[in-house]
Amino acid sequence: MKNYTSINDIDNINTWIEEAKKLKANPLEHQELGKNKTLGLLFFNSSLRTRLSTQKAALNLGMAPIVMNVSGDAWGIEFGDGTIMNGNTAEHIKEAAAVVSQYCDIIAVRAFPTLTDKEKDNSEQVLNAFKKYASVPIVNMESATGHPLQGLTDAITISEHAKVKKPKVVLSWAPHVKALPHAVANSFAQAMQKMDVEFVIANPEGYDLNPEITGDTPIYHNQEEAFKDADFVYTKNWSSYQDYGKVINTDPNWMITKAKLGDAKFMHCLPVRRNVVVEDAVLDTDSSLVIQQANNRTYAAQLVLKKILEDS
Amino acid sequence: MKNYTSINDIDNINTWIEEAKKLKANPLEHQELGKNKTLGLLFFNSSLRTRLSTQKAALNLGMAPIVMNVSGDAWGIEFGDGTIMNGNTAEHIKEAAAVVSQYCDIIAVRAFPTLTDKEKDNSEQVLNAFKKYASVPIVNMESATGHPLQGLTDAITISEHAKVKKPKVVLSWAPHVKALPHAVANSFAQAMQKMDVEFVIANPEGYDLNPEITGDTPIYHNQEEAFKDADFVYTKNWSSYQDYGKVINTDPNWMITKAKLGDAKFMHCLPVRRNVVVEDAVLDTDSSLVIQQANNRTYAAQLVLKKILEDS
Amino acid sequence: MKNYTSINDIDNINTWIEEAKKLKANPLEHQELGKNKTLGLLFFNSSLRTRLSTQKAALNLGMAPIVMNVSGDAWGIEFGDGTIMNGNTAEHIKEAAAVVSQYCDIIAVRAFPTLTDKEKDNSEQVLNAFKKYASVPIVNMESATGHPLQGLTDAITISEHAKVKKPKVVLSWAPHVKALPHAVANSFAQAMQKMDVEFVIANPEGYDLNPEITGDTPIYHNQEEAFKDADFVYTKNWSSYQDYGKVINTDPNWMITKAKLGDAKFMHCLPVRRNVVVEDAVLDTDSSLVIQQANNRTYAAQLVLKKILEDS
Repeated sequence: MKNYTSINDIDNINTWIEEAKKLKANPLEHQELGKNKTLGLLFFNSSLRTRLSTQKAALNLGMAPIVMNVSGDAWGIEFGDGTIMNGNTAEHIKEAAAVVSQYCDIIAVRAFPTLTDKEKDNSEQVLNAFKKYASVPIVNMESATGHPLQGLTDAITISEHAKVKKPKVVLSWAPHVKALPHAVANSFAQAMQKMDVEFVIANPEGYDLNPEITGDTPIYHNQEEAFKDADFVYTKNWSSYQDYGKVINTDPNWMITKAKLGDAKFMHCLPVRRNVVVEDAVLDTDSSLVIQQANNRTYAAQLVLKKILEDS
Repeated sequence: MKNYTSINDIDNINTWIEEAKKLKANPLEHQELGKNKTLGLLFFNSSLRTRLSTQKAALNLGMAPIVMNVSGDAWGIEFGDGTIMNGNTAEHIKEAAAVVSQYCDIIAVRAFPTLTDKEKDNSEQVLNAFKKYASVPIVNMESATGHPLQGLTDAITISEHAKVKKPKVVLSWAPHVKALPHAVANSFAQAMQKMDVEFVIANPEGYDLNPEITGDTPIYHNQEEAFKDADFVYTKNWSSYQDYGKVINTDPNWMITKAKLGDAKFMHCLPVRRNVVVEDAVLDTDSSLVIQQANNRTYAAQLVLKKILEDS
Repeated sequence: MKNYTSINDIDNINTWIEEAKKLKANPLEHQELGKNKTLGLLFFNSSLRTRLSTQKAALNLGMAPIVMNVSGDAWGIEFGDGTIMNGNTAEHIKEAAAVVSQYCDIIAVRAFPTLTDKEKDNSEQVLNAFKKYASVPIVNMESATGHPLQGLTDAITISEHAKVKKPKVVLSWAPHVKALPHAVANSFAQAMQKMDVEFVIANPEGYDLNPEITGDTPIYHNQEEAFKDADFVYTKNWSSYQDYGKVINTDPNWMITKAKLGDAKFMHCLPVRRNVVVEDAVLDTDSSLVIQQANNRTYAAQLVLKKILEDS
């Protein structure tokens, strides 16, 4: 594997899940693999879990992580082709990506969407520029349209906690005060479509995700109907895709409650706004798998780094 | 020892001082202890000495330090119980602390007081939330009311430089242009109360520290009287505790001068404002121990980390 | 070697270049040299290449890098002698430098010029204060008037790519929208003056560099004339030195084009503004050595750190 930028880079999700579980059981087994190698973590946006878990994953493999907050630490980066750079950007991605490749054996990048320019976001400008101009492998730490380290994490977590052979998994929209990206929801949907689960999506009208992502997955606009017999309810807010980047509904009736959940397990990528997205009664009980998910972030990242190191 | 959040966590300060001196003599002796373990350093506020010395201490023990400026790098954190999180905070401490515990074997936290809400500061909201919700040990890198790594450092330094069996130690307030926390003064007082020294405090009227901290320690409102026969003068500005967080006096007569000091040694946690808190003639001569104190920060932190690692 | 703060610290540039090439061929040969030692990287300004390449160099030598953005992470630093510090600065460089020396075996510093106070910039206030008050070696990661890690890098790169015994090297000014420092141009000139090359400078009238730096080097105000038979064209914008820190000319005719360059190789320290300083047609072809230069930053830094470690 050269790059890991999308759930589509996973050839066989079941094999990957088994490998990740082995890493989790013995995380220090491959310490020689990353020796004398560096992982560059480039953040264009805030990060807690991704920042820490990816560093931990690198350290487990013997790699040295080098962290950089691109916006604050370095220069404004230009992505346009042929631009006369007499404005606010001081360095072109062509140089930036090639240069970082001189110092890092793998480059991991986080760059959120604009949520105002649908076409630009769908083109994955930043991520694809790194893929194009870097000479080393690229890992997506959440881009405009995907968060495949999270999607892999979630697949591992569902596999660990499933009590039936083919569990029912619901991806449910929940209300939020701000306009949020589609990346986590997209990658979760793609991961579930690759697993042997019954997968459905629940969201209010006007909130259907990109149909190229959802494909044949059933979409319910009635949350109660979708939740019937659910084993896992994965919750996430996202802004409208059709009315791009807009908050068109904050209906508190879509908040996840203990009553709605029944025996289903609650999942969320975090950070989560308590009593807006989900009530305390869910998070503060065994219904919630959010901390287990956070823990699995390490092993998802470690698996991805291991596969890249083995192939390079 | 599970956590190190207060001078009260020191069971026997004399034993600790002897152990710290041994570490200082041979800082790399315990490199296996922290191998493959990570120390998370979470800063809600600025830091120079604590940032560098705690990393150095971790490295001496073979640990990998992971540094995060919480406010800039991650999300606004909510501490309220039951809050409907539809405001500026995006992640609850319940999740944040539990999540960081998945990646770090020890979490060190710096979170300054508000200096506007006495009750909130005295409740040590941030530090106690980490203690409550993290599943790994917590180290206090300066909280609302204490700076126990500094207090331990100062005890070590006094022990190294004492020329008599029971030296006289004065904690003296000095003027400053800004409202400063009580944390350093509190932890210093607590450390001295545990040592075999003659300990007194000098501050202007209206600047008495929290009486629960000062206890039986004599408090002088006359600096000259307090300084008589002093061996060590530990200087620090703090804002009023009674008139909470206010600067009620900036009397330059309280500045520390060479003349006032006589043969006593000058100590300060740094950073120090020259010619406001203390005159150049003190800092630029052998009267000052401030650099020796800074050096001992490493061994105080290393001793604390070692004790936690040995017990976990 | 104690400090590396100027190209003048290079005793024999040819020997250094040969040593750097050996390090590049076998970068991990000296991993024991830096073991259990720390390199403090203190940034008063933005950095991409220097930040990453200096960390990589330290790691190659087995050192642990500790990075700090001084302005954001710590306290405002005072440099004045005898100042009554009742303003915005909270810590004097006398303490800051001595304190960091307690935790770091080598201190590397980046501090750009004011470009408004010529005398202050020429006095190298920040760099010299670190040299004076630190008790460990200092490395210049770009100061007010010099960038000697870049100058050494450029000497290595020219040596690697020279096709004739004594190549002709032109340092050419190019237009830019902002007022930029003289540091890179100064150190490049000083490095070329030490090498066996034919070295000339091309800049518009009013843009002559400090005559104490340029010395006997021929200065052309006609770019075309200077470029005749050039083997290497090293390009950089700088603000006026005479009319200190001012942008007195943005003439686009000074931009580097493929046509002007002919068979000469293009060099630049980066970041570079495309189609302002140089056209795409240069950077996107084999005419450009900018990525090779960026790569050599690692080995220049590694050589400097190695020499300091060997002497201490």
